[in-house]
Amino acid sequence: MTDFILDPRLEADSVLVGDGRLTQFRLHRNAAFPWLLLIPRRASVSELIDLTEDEQKILWADIAWASAVMQNLYTPKKLNVAAIGNIVPQLHVHVIARFDNDGAWPHPVWNSGIKKDYADDELDKAVSALKRALALEPAV
Amino acid sequence: MTDFILDPRLEADSVLVGDGRLTQFRLHRNAAFPWLLLIPRRASVSELIDLTEDEQKILWADIAWASAVMQNLYTPKKLNVAAIGNIVPQLHVHVIARFDNDGAWPHPVWNSGIKKDYADDELDKAVSALKRALALEPAV
Repeated sequence: MTDFILDPRLEADSVLVGDGRLTQFRLHRNAAFPWLLLIPRRASVSELIDLTEDEQKILWADIAWASAVMQNLYTPKKLNVAAIGNIVPQLHVHVIARFDNDGAWPHPVWNSGIKKDYADDELDKAVSALKRALALEPAV
Repeated sequence: MTDFILDPRLEADSVLVGDGRLTQFRLHRNAAFPWLLLIPRRASVSELIDLTEDEQKILWADIAWASAVMQNLYTPKKLNVAAIGNIVPQLHVHVIARFDNDGAWPHPVWNSGIKKDYADDELDKAVSALKRALALEPAV
């Protein structure tokens, strides 16, 4: 097994906000949607079912935790949770807080063309809030 | 708790192909993509984290099983697994087999406008193959 290396496209699109039990928690730089990426710290994994059964269980715990944090911080109308990876094959799970007044609603955010940059202070604020909340993930 | 009632939009869009441990397995009627919907047989559940922790574990087993079946039957380039639900809030998980020559590649299928009807015999064939394969889901 080779070492985990974060795909440079995922790295460029996002900011590290925590380390879950199996995954890196990263905030997507698109400010149009509160948007986390969860990337398992495993090399050469593309599909959810490429992970071992034990890893899948831990990934699920990270997804559930990230979902709860996003729900508490943002109180969205709906969470969108997805593993797609048609463009960047390194396994990554999206956890996105959606609102009925966001630019893409009710459609998915991917390929929506809706994009916004964070102002520096907004990014700092979001990163701090997420870091604090995500760090409280319970152990098994 | 009220009884589980399948949302009529999900029902109209899909055909029952099996009962997983927690979910109905249903084939989406859009023939442009081999596409399963997994719907937990629980009332009033919209988010993954609305399920109890035990139910979440069983849902995950159904998702992993449906993913393995789709991979074996269709040998896709990539699986897309997602819980979105912005339009139909009843919790449903998409498991879609994607190919680099399908009409929406590399973009997601939702809101792609790519749609095709199954011929009757093709639908029968897909339903039979899926029923046979999905029925082999291992018990815990």
